[in-house]
Amino acid sequence: MQYPDYNAYRRRILNDAILPDGFQTAVVPLEFIPREIPEAGKQSMNLALIRLSEPASSFAGVFTRNAFPGWPVVLGRKMLNVPGIQGVLVNNKVANVGAEDGMAASEHLSELTSKLFGDSAPYIPSSTGVIGWSLPLEAMESALPDLKGNLQSDSLLPFAEAIMTTDAWPKIRSGKCGEGLITATAKGAGMVEPDMATMLAFFLTDVSVPRDAARAILPDVVDESFNRISIDGETSTSDSVLLLSSGVKPYPGDEAFRLSLMETAEALSEDVVRNGEGTAHVFRVTVSGAEDRQTGVNLARSIVNAPLTKTAVRGNDPNVGRILQAFGSACGRAGVTIHRDRLSLDIGGRRVYSKGTFHLNSQEEAALSAYFRGKELPLPSKKWPMHEERVDIELHLGSGNASASVTGSDLSEEYVKINADYRT
Amino acid sequence: MQYPDYNAYRRRILNDAILPDGFQTAVVPLEFIPREIPEAGKQSMNLALIRLSEPASSFAGVFTRNAFPGWPVVLGRKMLNVPGIQGVLVNNKVANVGAEDGMAASEHLSELTSKLFGDSAPYIPSSTGVIGWSLPLEAMESALPDLKGNLQSDSLLPFAEAIMTTDAWPKIRSGKCGEGLITATAKGAGMVEPDMATMLAFFLTDVSVPRDAARAILPDVVDESFNRISIDGETSTSDSVLLLSSGVKPYPGDEAFRLSLMETAEALSEDVVRNGEGTAHVFRVTVSGAEDRQTGVNLARSIVNAPLTKTAVRGNDPNVGRILQAFGSACGRAGVTIHRDRLSLDIGGRRVYSKGTFHLNSQEEAALSAYFRGKELPLPSKKWPMHEERVDIELHLGSGNASASVTGSDLSEEYVKINADYRT
Repeated sequence: MQYPDYNAYRRRILNDAILPDGFQTAVVPLEFIPREIPEAGKQSMNLALIRLSEPASSFAGVFTRNAFPGWPVVLGRKMLNVPGIQGVLVNNKVANVGAEDGMAASEHLSELTSKLFGDSAPYIPSSTGVIGWSLPLEAMESALPDLKGNLQSDSLLPFAEAIMTTDAWPKIRSGKCGEGLITATAKGAGMVEPDMATMLAFFLTDVSVPRDAARAILPDVVDESFNRISIDGETSTSDSVLLLSSGVKPYPGDEAFRLSLMETAEALSEDVVRNGEGTAHVFRVTVSGAEDRQTGVNLARSIVNAPLTKTAVRGNDPNVGRILQAFGSACGRAGVTIHRDRLSLDIGGRRVYSKGTFHLNSQEEAALSAYFRGKELPLPSKKWPMHEERVDIELHLGSGNASASVTGSDLSEEYVKINADYRT
Repeated sequence: MQYPDYNAYRRRILNDAILPDGFQTAVVPLEFIPREIPEAGKQSMNLALIRLSEPASSFAGVFTRNAFPGWPVVLGRKMLNVPGIQGVLVNNKVANVGAEDGMAASEHLSELTSKLFGDSAPYIPSSTGVIGWSLPLEAMESALPDLKGNLQSDSLLPFAEAIMTTDAWPKIRSGKCGEGLITATAKGAGMVEPDMATMLAFFLTDVSVPRDAARAILPDVVDESFNRISIDGETSTSDSVLLLSSGVKPYPGDEAFRLSLMETAEALSEDVVRNGEGTAHVFRVTVSGAEDRQTGVNLARSIVNAPLTKTAVRGNDPNVGRILQAFGSACGRAGVTIHRDRLSLDIGGRRVYSKGTFHLNSQEEAALSAYFRGKELPLPSKKWPMHEERVDIELHLGSGNASASVTGSDLSEEYVKINADYRT
């Protein structure tokens, strides 16, 4: 899809932002001075709420595998066991990771929110932002009551905008699911200012997916969507994907629900990659002909994460040697044998290596370079994506029938500049 | 060590460049036009030779684990079985990886060299440079005879300079070993122009290390030196470390030999990291208190390779949250449990995290930032390193008694610029 101007993008987003039945959202901004580093000066934060009309027993969550998770993640994992939840309370700017009394702070805010609305069920807290700072409890408590007056059920867009940190634009996708709807938003700015690069995603649906089905299907879908994107190979301390069902529409069955959820999740996860401020190309590496799918995933991820591949793509440089170098390196680490004569490499559908040798010539290089250029996004990033183009790289191992894809972003000077300059 | 000008560096290098007894080197430059991409125009290449006065039965080699190795690596592995070798023939500019008839080309050059000098024993070929191009056999054959007239036994410096590709300066280290000497050189420009980032290292000694001892000790030493540096987490298609002994001096015993070799290898491997044109800081991550050493190595390597750590170090940014984030991510992947209360993080000897919380304040941040600044190298790189300073980061797990260090380079805008602009 092409977005020649912000209005074109906004039309698509607004169309996708329709809230499923049974959901409301509210947003309130606040300001605070960080306790640990008062010299950092006044900071802006948003509180953003998703509220269900009735407590939902059907909800599911997938959290970061980082062994040093934020306190909201620790609490969120525990809360998966409660019989029902009322919604989600999100703040940006402070991730509440490694901060003193961080667990108590998240619990406290969750309780205050239930009290404010007179709800019997709890809210799952979610935080994203600087690691190490404490939540500014006093300022958050003062702002919280304003959420009540700001409730609306028109659009997910204000919520999607409020949870942004260094995201360049809001990200929303939705799709039909039987007679109902799945609408989802994610924040996550990829490699930019990485201690704010938490990926949070919220999937809202009005179809009455059973709790057990939600918990079986969400991890599978996340595994094939959000776990198939890779920006810098890192798992943040706060990554969370939550699914909430208001249950007011009939359930179309597991298969239909899984398909709808997958479609939304795939589109949204690619949006996350495209959104990195330093992202000039989105590229997808497919490893086919592998002995099993996990091998395909691991190898594809290694190539997507290799700085050599990333910078070649950035420079529109058809440096095919780098891709095979990264592939050989990954295979060496994984103990996967390469059969030189069966291996092939395609870029944008053009065969550049097969039968043991590269097919290199100037004409081919020019064609590949033009292909890369055609997929390029302008840097520095605009306030909306220009298009949804993607560079496709496929490696065929010739060893089996399994295949897997991983989607990532290139590595730009802008990324390094933003990250190196951050805070200093 | 400080090197205020090139002469200061050259004094150190010349002092280290003394050839052990029994070795000669020769260098000859040549020009060629690449067969595959003639539009690339005239290219410069060096042929560089190490020749032993007598065939050496004591030699050892450690080669890349990349599953897509260059032809010289495939041939070199086979040649480890011959009873004796006469030396090494190295070329830069073309790596001979994935090129048609590449194996035959390397074999042919090796044979021509033996014939030229009337030697009965073979030469191990070694190539570094562009992946995918064929060796320019005709031009190399024409230049080869000039090696004979250029033989000298004064210094390793001309050889060290001739094997450079995008290296900013030659790298040589030497140390005493009993009554003899170990002198070594390496080429490898780290993350710069990565399809030329092959690391080749040659260790020459005159002590009569037995063949079996050489082959037992070299892999161990490489594992704790060259395998403990990490520039971009990649293993090139051509990485090779060779050890040759002329055997004309007495052998001081395994322990003394191992120590000498380790000392030279550690210094030389850190030189390789410092040499990356995009390297503004060398930093070392130590993971202590691990349950076993391999866990320590894996975790330290993950942090060294994390773009988040790399850019923070680049920007002199004491963004301690990123380091713990990367550590948590690596622990999560490796299935290592973090005990929050036992974990501690020190940077440059300053404790920044312990007992479950960060110790953050403005004064501490300023001190850490000053520490990073003090270790910075100027960018763009000069033709010599300014100093041998290093940033030290230590994570203590509190789970056991094992510890391991990995040394790496930061990630700079210059790196991305050079790599993205390469060839286009």
